[in-house]
Amino acid sequence: MTSVPKGRRSGGRAGRKAARSAAHVQASPYLIRAAPPYDALSEEGLTCIEDNAETILEEVGIDFRGYPTALERLAAAGANIDGERVRFPRGLCREIVTASAPGSFTHHARNPIRNLQIGGDASVFAPAYGSPFVYDLEAGRRYATLEDFCNFVKLAYMSPAMHGSGGTVCEPVDIPVAHRHLDMTYAHLRYSDKAFMGSVTAPERAQDTVDMAKLVFGEEFVEAHCTTINLINAASPMAWDASMLSVAEVYARHGQATLITPFILAGAMAPVTVAGVAAQTLAEALAGMTFVQLVRPGAPMIFGSFASSLSMQSGAPTFGTAEAAQVIFVMAALARRLGVPFRSGGNLCASKVPDAQAGAESASTLIPTLLAGTHFVLHAAGWLEGGLTMGYEKFIMDADQCGLWGRLLAGIDLSENGQALDAIREVGPGQHFLGTAHTLANFETAFGRSEVSDNDSFEQWREEGSLDAASRAHKLWKQKLESYAPPEIDQGTDSALLDFVARRRREIPDRVD
Amino acid sequence: MTSVPKGRRSGGRAGRKAARSAAHVQASPYLIRAAPPYDALSEEGLTCIEDNAETILEEVGIDFRGYPTALERLAAAGANIDGERVRFPRGLCREIVTASAPGSFTHHARNPIRNLQIGGDASVFAPAYGSPFVYDLEAGRRYATLEDFCNFVKLAYMSPAMHGSGGTVCEPVDIPVAHRHLDMTYAHLRYSDKAFMGSVTAPERAQDTVDMAKLVFGEEFVEAHCTTINLINAASPMAWDASMLSVAEVYARHGQATLITPFILAGAMAPVTVAGVAAQTLAEALAGMTFVQLVRPGAPMIFGSFASSLSMQSGAPTFGTAEAAQVIFVMAALARRLGVPFRSGGNLCASKVPDAQAGAESASTLIPTLLAGTHFVLHAAGWLEGGLTMGYEKFIMDADQCGLWGRLLAGIDLSENGQALDAIREVGPGQHFLGTAHTLANFETAFGRSEVSDNDSFEQWREEGSLDAASRAHKLWKQKLESYAPPEIDQGTDSALLDFVARRRREIPDRVD
Repeated sequence: MTSVPKGRRSGGRAGRKAARSAAHVQASPYLIRAAPPYDALSEEGLTCIEDNAETILEEVGIDFRGYPTALERLAAAGANIDGERVRFPRGLCREIVTASAPGSFTHHARNPIRNLQIGGDASVFAPAYGSPFVYDLEAGRRYATLEDFCNFVKLAYMSPAMHGSGGTVCEPVDIPVAHRHLDMTYAHLRYSDKAFMGSVTAPERAQDTVDMAKLVFGEEFVEAHCTTINLINAASPMAWDASMLSVAEVYARHGQATLITPFILAGAMAPVTVAGVAAQTLAEALAGMTFVQLVRPGAPMIFGSFASSLSMQSGAPTFGTAEAAQVIFVMAALARRLGVPFRSGGNLCASKVPDAQAGAESASTLIPTLLAGTHFVLHAAGWLEGGLTMGYEKFIMDADQCGLWGRLLAGIDLSENGQALDAIREVGPGQHFLGTAHTLANFETAFGRSEVSDNDSFEQWREEGSLDAASRAHKLWKQKLESYAPPEIDQGTDSALLDFVARRRREIPDRVD
Repeated sequence: MTSVPKGRRSGGRAGRKAARSAAHVQASPYLIRAAPPYDALSEEGLTCIEDNAETILEEVGIDFRGYPTALERLAAAGANIDGERVRFPRGLCREIVTASAPGSFTHHARNPIRNLQIGGDASVFAPAYGSPFVYDLEAGRRYATLEDFCNFVKLAYMSPAMHGSGGTVCEPVDIPVAHRHLDMTYAHLRYSDKAFMGSVTAPERAQDTVDMAKLVFGEEFVEAHCTTINLINAASPMAWDASMLSVAEVYARHGQATLITPFILAGAMAPVTVAGVAAQTLAEALAGMTFVQLVRPGAPMIFGSFASSLSMQSGAPTFGTAEAAQVIFVMAALARRLGVPFRSGGNLCASKVPDAQAGAESASTLIPTLLAGTHFVLHAAGWLEGGLTMGYEKFIMDADQCGLWGRLLAGIDLSENGQALDAIREVGPGQHFLGTAHTLANFETAFGRSEVSDNDSFEQWREEGSLDAASRAHKLWKQKLESYAPPEIDQGTDSALLDFVARRRREIPDRVD
């Protein structure tokens, strides 16, 4: 049997608490991947998927709906247009994408020490995106407000594990739809200085985002550098809609990054098989990325994949399954072969509350995401209920897991210190390593430290109120928000942003959606 | 933003519930691995660890304590003996182990359709092992009893995801220590017909286990076939104790399998680094396996690794960390190179209750366990509180995850049906796959189905009582135990077992420990 050892304890409860909270002082701006990715398919298998994607592009085609300029661009590049159906000669999309899409790029943050490398050997985490509801243990589930939005931006800013502050971290439904993007963009720029994501609900809102970025970064800088990443979802199966294409066009024209993401619930928008989902996802993404590169060759892009299986019983999406992981593994490998940055995964779950289901499904998504070698991890913190709800406690728990598991990417240290042979020689059979020089020199950094997990004895845990993880996380997010201090901002810049928001609020009718 | 689709619903709530519970009717006796393992280290990295293990065996040595016959056997095989310290010329252990240890073997169950392949391309799950406490939502944490023990054997028997019924699934502390093994072995043989694990607390109890197995399988059969797997832990660092060696000797002599497992809390029994833990684990395991092969060349064995990092704050073990996963990846690869079956991982956690911490830490152990290519997964269901507690709800949740994630091992289907190109051609852009022939033909088997996870709408979930995963699991274990029916057993065999137990109870003083 296994048992908890009577390890040496020192410093008492207060000392340990202090050590625990001092653990993550400095955020590295992003993770560097040295660990090899997991290969779920052989070269041959990946080639098979690629061939099938070309067959889909060539024979079945992709619809570009309600956006004639896309059809014109694609026709000029050699695609065959039939109404809104676009068929691509084999290899055309791959050729266009690989000719000009950058393999990696810098996502600039307001604070340059937080600039992110997207692609290559870097991986970054960003909060969950798009929930109309929020949840916390005390108030339960409710519609999100701008206050919630700002809270999550602040929490992301304060979290060393979140490399960016995200985009629509929740929908501030107390603000008119046509004005929301102004408040959201301002919040990202004011309450955080991390890299952020722009509005994608309409081209003029995308333009507002770009204009606000220019007030912060400067006009010329924005045109030549990525300062926003923008989530462009396909209308799967095999279609792109005008709403997303027009937004992608605005961002690409200004050199801003697009996250081109087929959004698949397998069984509804794609076949129920992993290889089918993969081929279709690749075809849709290639078509979307081709369009972006035709708008502006060299525009930064991320190849995204969001795939969940559909419960054929309830019609609802499921998360944290082996099949979803297999899709992530395959798509990441396909993106590597294409030479573009890859986005997928996160801390996804179907659970309504931060319970064991949430914990298991989220970890079951996050770990495959990391092992796949994913570059950009959206939905890395807060996601509940299939994305319908942003959870306060869940955010804390997820960010904690991101911190713990991001360490995997560093790979295994085989330096002399890592091999620790001298320590083993020194200690020898039957002794313990607790006080050795090697242990003392390494224990601070040897393991990730959780601020949520409880590893204490049962008696101690009971003494502290027998709290479950959600209750501990509840305390943590409240404490964090109470101790929040905004990053510095140049007063002129802040005024310019506020003036812009006020002017655009006046100009935009608040009843248009 | 992502949202829950308005998928088609059919059959109503009752229909869906029925379909859900009918999902896992037949257990396959074990999992077949087609998915490739994850390689965390290169060949060069693995060779480095192997070299360091040889250095430990050669220079530092391994203590074989209080068991002179082991020293005699090892000396005769070429090891250098210095008191109880045994040093092995480089390569000696590897040579002895590879010369005779089987690469895979059959673990015979009372019901032959449940015979397990151990090693090769097979993977099996067995319940958690060794907890003095049990926990359920209603009664809380308490000392385990024989009733609890029998309950977990029954639950394991009923669970399609558990391939064996385990060993000391919890400690029946209401039974005198010296008699427990009789009741436990009888329970495994009577309330389940799956493969089981034997008693390891004393050589005479091991002998009783073998004798009881002979009453069921026949004397000659047992001597020539593995009918029990037996957990033999090292006294890490770098030591083996008489208690475990003497038990291993009994089992090996009768051709029964030993699970040779260095048990490491990194920072206490080994260095805090992954490469250090790996080299030491390999050295300890090689020494232990060498002893077993000297007792009986060809005796079935499993190379085990249990490694957790020690919280330097609380002195308690931590679970579900990236570092623990790295150890599993490396040890599995080392076992493959050695050519023996590998055991590690499970659904491990430090949490006292089946909460989000339990869910996350367990999944964070299980998924690396599977991706590593682990053959024998002990502690696959029930584990709470670092193994001190066996949880009823946790058992249900873990077995559910094992069922869902065992599917990963099948790999990705690249058959024509898996590629689903015809379905994609048939559906085309903008349509949905819900009613297509391909979807209808595949959806029953396309995805794993959870009996614990809730994927319903928020409204429906609320209507059903807003239950969290632990509460749902609570209902499930009660329902399962209520519907339990024992497997058939030959009456003569049962009487012989009962007679044996009664006789040994009379013979063994109940106060000896």
